[in-house]
Amino acid sequence: MAMKRAGVSAISALCSSPNLTRGVHSTAGSKKIVGVFYKANEYAELNPDFVGTVERGLGIRDWLESRGHQYIVTDDKEGPDCELEKHLSDLHVLITTPFHPAYVTAERIKKAKNLQLLLTAGIGSDHIDLKAAAEAGLTVAEVTGSNVVSVAEDELMRILILVRNFLPGYHQVINGDWNVAGIAHRAYDLEGKTVGTVGAGRIGRLLLQRLKPFNCNLLYHDRIKIDPELENQTGAKFEEDLDVMLPKCDIIVLNTPLTEKTRGMLDKERISKLKKGVLIVNNARGALVDTQAVADACASGQIGGYSGDVWFPQPAPKDHPWRYMPNQAMTPHISGTTIDAQLRYAAGTKDMLDRYFKGEEFPVQNYIVKEGVLAPQYQ
Amino acid sequence: MAMKRAGVSAISALCSSPNLTRGVHSTAGSKKIVGVFYKANEYAELNPDFVGTVERGLGIRDWLESRGHQYIVTDDKEGPDCELEKHLSDLHVLITTPFHPAYVTAERIKKAKNLQLLLTAGIGSDHIDLKAAAEAGLTVAEVTGSNVVSVAEDELMRILILVRNFLPGYHQVINGDWNVAGIAHRAYDLEGKTVGTVGAGRIGRLLLQRLKPFNCNLLYHDRIKIDPELENQTGAKFEEDLDVMLPKCDIIVLNTPLTEKTRGMLDKERISKLKKGVLIVNNARGALVDTQAVADACASGQIGGYSGDVWFPQPAPKDHPWRYMPNQAMTPHISGTTIDAQLRYAAGTKDMLDRYFKGEEFPVQNYIVKEGVLAPQYQ
Repeated sequence: MAMKRAGVSAISALCSSPNLTRGVHSTAGSKKIVGVFYKANEYAELNPDFVGTVERGLGIRDWLESRGHQYIVTDDKEGPDCELEKHLSDLHVLITTPFHPAYVTAERIKKAKNLQLLLTAGIGSDHIDLKAAAEAGLTVAEVTGSNVVSVAEDELMRILILVRNFLPGYHQVINGDWNVAGIAHRAYDLEGKTVGTVGAGRIGRLLLQRLKPFNCNLLYHDRIKIDPELENQTGAKFEEDLDVMLPKCDIIVLNTPLTEKTRGMLDKERISKLKKGVLIVNNARGALVDTQAVADACASGQIGGYSGDVWFPQPAPKDHPWRYMPNQAMTPHISGTTIDAQLRYAAGTKDMLDRYFKGEEFPVQNYIVKEGVLAPQYQ
Repeated sequence: MAMKRAGVSAISALCSSPNLTRGVHSTAGSKKIVGVFYKANEYAELNPDFVGTVERGLGIRDWLESRGHQYIVTDDKEGPDCELEKHLSDLHVLITTPFHPAYVTAERIKKAKNLQLLLTAGIGSDHIDLKAAAEAGLTVAEVTGSNVVSVAEDELMRILILVRNFLPGYHQVINGDWNVAGIAHRAYDLEGKTVGTVGAGRIGRLLLQRLKPFNCNLLYHDRIKIDPELENQTGAKFEEDLDVMLPKCDIIVLNTPLTEKTRGMLDKERISKLKKGVLIVNNARGALVDTQAVADACASGQIGGYSGDVWFPQPAPKDHPWRYMPNQAMTPHISGTTIDAQLRYAAGTKDMLDRYFKGEEFPVQNYIVKEGVLAPQYQ
């Protein structure tokens, strides 16, 4: 805490320098806000709560425009001639999402001379060059907590889909077959299995709570132990050494952010040391694992099933090996963008914009970079 | 309880009549035991614990034969020339399963003059004509509890698959697509939704316990209220009137046995009164619902998703409408025959055979018909 205060003081001092003031919350005048979302297209009219889309733009257009701000919404985010590039030179706020990520590179930050605020509608910032954003004195923030329940629920669904071998049965149904043995020979109960989460942050802890009634052996690895009360409530055991925990697991769930330290953490060598037939769920980030090593291990049977909604890169190209590997239960990046999550992150984004216009602080947990200083967990 | 004792006394008196004694536990001599299971075929060698199959025959052959009994195992159970029919005239014990049901009709019971004991390896007896079995003085028993955890886990998986709209995302992956909007516009969190179980017996109660951490509104309908401690623990509210509960539910789970009272309970009229877009999970029995009414309601959107592993008839024919209706997440009859469940019901069946040979009572909860008298819940 002392260090953080020192950092804030340091940046406050720096911000008095004119060329570093653009990250400071501003109260003055009309702002240009650009939001990059996925398009709803033919689905736009099917659900009035489908707010996280180009068509609905978080439902904040009337509110922004009535206050004199300009609001541009697009899904066109790639290449030098895209819609996003056209607005870089004069936008003040850029709203992005992890589901259809606009990559905010050092080059783009340099071009965006008026940019003050980068907001993630949702959780996650690995599509943003945080070092460049910090060096430019920007503020980067997310709607922390907005979709943690959504993701934890989805992880438990994926655990069950893999353990119980759901998809071969579903394929039999749509193919006109009926062969119970073809499913049952590798269908198990979750009860009694060892489940380990790599990371016990907000999502990991919610997953452990939801796993509790299934009577599994629960393990977790993180930098620090979770609250003793929660540890007691869930019965989850702390594993200090990742490489000691992983080979104990029947099921491994990745719940750790993507950083330079965690990139490629599940590589060929680590996979070779797991239990044969281990099941892996990854709704965190695709680049946490070695893409080809996972595909090879699914083909050999070393991995018995792999499910998640994150890929590298995204959108996954048509020839991404995970589309074709056996025993996969993959989807596009979806778990954090349920309708319930969209309503929450739209409300959270609006709240931060409102505070930004008024020159007020954001909820402290939302900051990733605060006026040029990285939040402690990203340092 | 008084009534039950009266019933047992009555049948004890009846059993002294020579033509009604065949249901009485017998200790004398070599028995002929026939088991009807599904075939493992090419999957037989893939898992040594795959015991609920023709190839492994519950793993009790050596044990039976070393005690001088004859053990016939087959999957051939239909028509006048099937393997099962060949053995009806002289078998003493018939073991069946709900996953590949041998229909034990009044006619077959009449042919099986030496038959004393009908065992379900698993749970359920609606493939058996219980009235005819009772009239013939037989004992019918199941391995109560052997797969209740398996089924409850599977139900929660299906709830999540429907609520979160998993399958359209999976289809995109295997079809080379990426369209988050096509999934997200009807993907929700389970949190905050109203889930009602029709029936809160062993499986329904296990489901309620597993749903508890998801922070839903939990409702249940049954003939009697569950234990107050469990009601308190899960927060589930008792609904005396089924037709009052059903229209409140976002998600309905069927957990009631098939009887003449429950057959077709979810018919066209009841479905029309449900919330538009309701999700339905049925791992109980296919005939609890009107097949065509469900298919029509899925097509119209009145039902937003239907998932289960039970059909009428089974195996489902290639033209069964549930194979083709929109928003289905069906599988063959699988939830109660995980490897863990097979090991439990194989052990439970062996235990009952051992008690039968020794002339001992079965665990009381296993009886469906005890020496000609229906267990109270089937009366």
